[in-house]
Amino acid sequence: MSTVEDKVERVTGVALKRGLFWPSFEIYGGVAGLYDIGPVGVRIKNRIVKLWRDIVIRENDDLVMEVETPIITPEAVLKASGHVDHFTDPVVECMQCHRVFRADHLVEEKLKINAEGLAVNELTQIISTNKIKCPYCDGELGPVTTFNLLFKTIIGPYSGSTGYMRPETAQGIFTSFKRVFESSRESLPLGIAQIGRVGRNEISPRQNLIRMRDFTIMELEFFFDTSQKRNIPWERVEKVKIKVLDLDMKRQGEKPNEYKPHELATSGKVLDEWMAYWMGVSQKFVEKLGIKNSYFEEKSPEERAHYSKQTFDLMVDINGTSVEISGIAYRGDYDLSAHMNATGKDLTVFKRYDTPKTIKKDIILIDKSKLIKAFGERGKSIIEKLSRMTKDELEGIVLSRKAVDDVIIAEYAIINQTEEKVSGERIVPHVIEPSFGVERCFYLSLINSFRIKENRNILSLPPEIAPFDLAVFPLLERQPLIDKSKELVRLVKDSGYEVFYDESGSIGKRYARADEIGIPLAITVDPQTLDDNTVTIRNRDTWEQVRVHVNNILMTLGELLHG
Amino acid sequence: MSTVEDKVERVTGVALKRGLFWPSFEIYGGVAGLYDIGPVGVRIKNRIVKLWRDIVIRENDDLVMEVETPIITPEAVLKASGHVDHFTDPVVECMQCHRVFRADHLVEEKLKINAEGLAVNELTQIISTNKIKCPYCDGELGPVTTFNLLFKTIIGPYSGSTGYMRPETAQGIFTSFKRVFESSRESLPLGIAQIGRVGRNEISPRQNLIRMRDFTIMELEFFFDTSQKRNIPWERVEKVKIKVLDLDMKRQGEKPNEYKPHELATSGKVLDEWMAYWMGVSQKFVEKLGIKNSYFEEKSPEERAHYSKQTFDLMVDINGTSVEISGIAYRGDYDLSAHMNATGKDLTVFKRYDTPKTIKKDIILIDKSKLIKAFGERGKSIIEKLSRMTKDELEGIVLSRKAVDDVIIAEYAIINQTEEKVSGERIVPHVIEPSFGVERCFYLSLINSFRIKENRNILSLPPEIAPFDLAVFPLLERQPLIDKSKELVRLVKDSGYEVFYDESGSIGKRYARADEIGIPLAITVDPQTLDDNTVTIRNRDTWEQVRVHVNNILMTLGELLHG
Repeated sequence: MSTVEDKVERVTGVALKRGLFWPSFEIYGGVAGLYDIGPVGVRIKNRIVKLWRDIVIRENDDLVMEVETPIITPEAVLKASGHVDHFTDPVVECMQCHRVFRADHLVEEKLKINAEGLAVNELTQIISTNKIKCPYCDGELGPVTTFNLLFKTIIGPYSGSTGYMRPETAQGIFTSFKRVFESSRESLPLGIAQIGRVGRNEISPRQNLIRMRDFTIMELEFFFDTSQKRNIPWERVEKVKIKVLDLDMKRQGEKPNEYKPHELATSGKVLDEWMAYWMGVSQKFVEKLGIKNSYFEEKSPEERAHYSKQTFDLMVDINGTSVEISGIAYRGDYDLSAHMNATGKDLTVFKRYDTPKTIKKDIILIDKSKLIKAFGERGKSIIEKLSRMTKDELEGIVLSRKAVDDVIIAEYAIINQTEEKVSGERIVPHVIEPSFGVERCFYLSLINSFRIKENRNILSLPPEIAPFDLAVFPLLERQPLIDKSKELVRLVKDSGYEVFYDESGSIGKRYARADEIGIPLAITVDPQTLDDNTVTIRNRDTWEQVRVHVNNILMTLGELLHG
Repeated sequence: MSTVEDKVERVTGVALKRGLFWPSFEIYGGVAGLYDIGPVGVRIKNRIVKLWRDIVIRENDDLVMEVETPIITPEAVLKASGHVDHFTDPVVECMQCHRVFRADHLVEEKLKINAEGLAVNELTQIISTNKIKCPYCDGELGPVTTFNLLFKTIIGPYSGSTGYMRPETAQGIFTSFKRVFESSRESLPLGIAQIGRVGRNEISPRQNLIRMRDFTIMELEFFFDTSQKRNIPWERVEKVKIKVLDLDMKRQGEKPNEYKPHELATSGKVLDEWMAYWMGVSQKFVEKLGIKNSYFEEKSPEERAHYSKQTFDLMVDINGTSVEISGIAYRGDYDLSAHMNATGKDLTVFKRYDTPKTIKKDIILIDKSKLIKAFGERGKSIIEKLSRMTKDELEGIVLSRKAVDDVIIAEYAIINQTEEKVSGERIVPHVIEPSFGVERCFYLSLINSFRIKENRNILSLPPEIAPFDLAVFPLLERQPLIDKSKELVRLVKDSGYEVFYDESGSIGKRYARADEIGIPLAITVDPQTLDDNTVTIRNRDTWEQVRVHVNNILMTLGELLHG
């Protein structure tokens, strides 16, 4: 099993047979990019979500809170956010069979070059120059155009009310930012997290759960004041090391460099120190999934989303192939400003100074009588013009000694300097966004933890994301052993453990099934149990068994599962 | 606060101020039927989901497993399920201002009658007879038509691939039933649960979170074999009593009658004993939400969904007003049969008999040489025709002594009677579906638990669904008290409790806030704590305080929160 393809094939086989995932609506021929998560898969997925909540929200609950906003989003919101115009992929249609292809992927496959972020005319040029044809019918390809990935619909009974399925949860957070801010402690920094379903109408979804049309996303929008002293809880990521490959290093063909998060913060590689913190937290999460080989790769301006000033993709190495598991973007004030512009609503935050500032101000008064005395009716007309100016305009004319109707206004102005106490100012917070696709985490965790031992499949998932904590098996299908097993099931379930119980079939087959779905421990109740109240505990990865007294079982489980 | 309207108004005020819920996309003027759940609300909502998972899935994990299927659903699936044709509401358009109204609701509001389930022509008739006009402009109303509530979209880049946002999670379960069945223990009964987002394009959403266009549903599709002995775990609902008002009782104007679930099973009021079990489980869940006043009301055939053979709505009493919190439907084999018909795929389950049955079978052979002898070429042509018949057709012709080309085939047939051992048969399972809307549970729990005491708002939520288990407050904003408080926060957080920490403002205001969002307990660290390591614990509902040593705090919390 040397290549990632072999692994994918075996994992997909286990997924079907054991209830991890499979293509949706199979009896109707399936729909590309839609997958069901089966009973065992849902348990793993739910634990991955819990893990993210623990690490991103609960460990940071002085900074982060969670909200939930709708999937259906009115057009005005996604118009303002830029998604209606920019959330597109380049497509090309075959003029003969009229199949539609993702133009950049087609170019990448045919020419083995990186075509991400190329403009449509560049792609058209490349396709024409290299005489790329339709991969299905070898027909001529048309010009490259763009295709919008939003799922479009109508809200309510009136045909004009266009809406979309959201492509990210972020816009629900930006549009409710003010409410969340005001209903909580009304201070920055403030992280608002959301876990929910999104839709992206991919042209040609591929790679199983990597690129889906309908999936769950875990996002954090972290709002902060750029002028405020960063007070970053580095101790929460002190054990984390992150590897970074920035644009310069990529151009030089260098390897990623390793940093502690607080080192990265001051390295000049990230736009803000908070970027380094959330990269550290993201790294911590990925390691908990059991994934050790990962690095952050900076995206070039062409590769970045339209709202991003800087983006690092978190890449994980799966048998020599690099796959993106997450992205962290510096969105700046792009979104809040866009929604302010579109609605005219004030989404700024009042920033109170530690001590009120004293600001010197020029107050400019026009000596009207002097003007009228000097110019009569013409003076009145000048006064009328000046009165229609803003304070700033008037100040500009006076201080730079400009003329209005050939009159130097400065000569008829009185400048009074005053001092004013200002207790704060209104600012638009900036935003950093770490974002994870849940199914991608789920799928990559499976691939990453999949092993073969003596030709048997083992899913060596970390206990935190295993579908069950343990299995309980009576060695034989005999009533006293079954009764004792069920008693044990109740005991461990009451202590909060998730238990898989199975009484039928050979014990070898039951162990094999438990290994295949990644259950870390299997307890077996055998005839000796009825004599001395001991059971065996078998380890999924080593297949070693230890004999433990039932009275000590909870303590032993605690040690074995949580160290 | 005597009426439910007063309560709703106050709760809505608290919801806005404290981050429970608010209308979505407010800065864009809002969209009817879309709501955000704020930071405090999400905590309550997530706990309601966990409670449902515990009661419906975890307590029944020998019967029930959970899956997750996509929101986007191809048209063929919802065509087969009947939703494209039947998931509609009656609408009427004003001929003057062209506003569109839900016709049955309009009739109900104007005439104070129950118009649910009336046909479009009946509604048109009623509107015309009673001269009902447009409630906005008093214009003439047009004829009543139907409006489909599915959110429609296009999947992929081809315009023909219509898809919808699912209106229920059930169809994802039916279409993957075979996969779940085969990847699990391959036996009935089998419950498949799903928690997920659905979309219903309501014409005029109303009543806050009661009728939303995009919300979370918790559904269980419970598959069972109608001919199999029911083996129902009544002990899991032994403490539950359920009130039932069936159609007959409704017609007679009677009050609901109380049953234990196993009594209801044999009362003749439910189509299957399992109905009574899942009504019992649903009742148990609703009681855990703190809702005591509830009863099951049977729906008439006109009121039921198109797939249902029997439906009971679980109604809760909120200050004298009955509101539906859940529905339990007997879907029979409607859905699996519909998908089998539409796809030609076999969704049956092989049911193995306890002991193989012996079945007598007639084997019919045609004496070909006798036929040819008697009729020559015509005989050959008859043999050719018979060979194209199915076994059943041939049997019919022989046993009923019918002629083919004027020849009575029975006279040229040999009937051999044989016996065959049959080990089982293929059956289509029947389905019972208990279904809960999460936001409805959330909203009704808020309304139900809302109290006013000395003019202060209290949300007396049961601890299981409170947003936090406890609050920790330093009495004064002084460093030693703050440090001690944070130490306490760490201690209780490490034990799995959800803690609300706040250090600023008067203690009275902090208590008031904690009461208003339903935190059951508040621990206060005061100067005495620094002397003797004791703190006060204040009860949200009684406002009583007890002084407890920090060493005993975990034990005390366990007792106070979980009894």
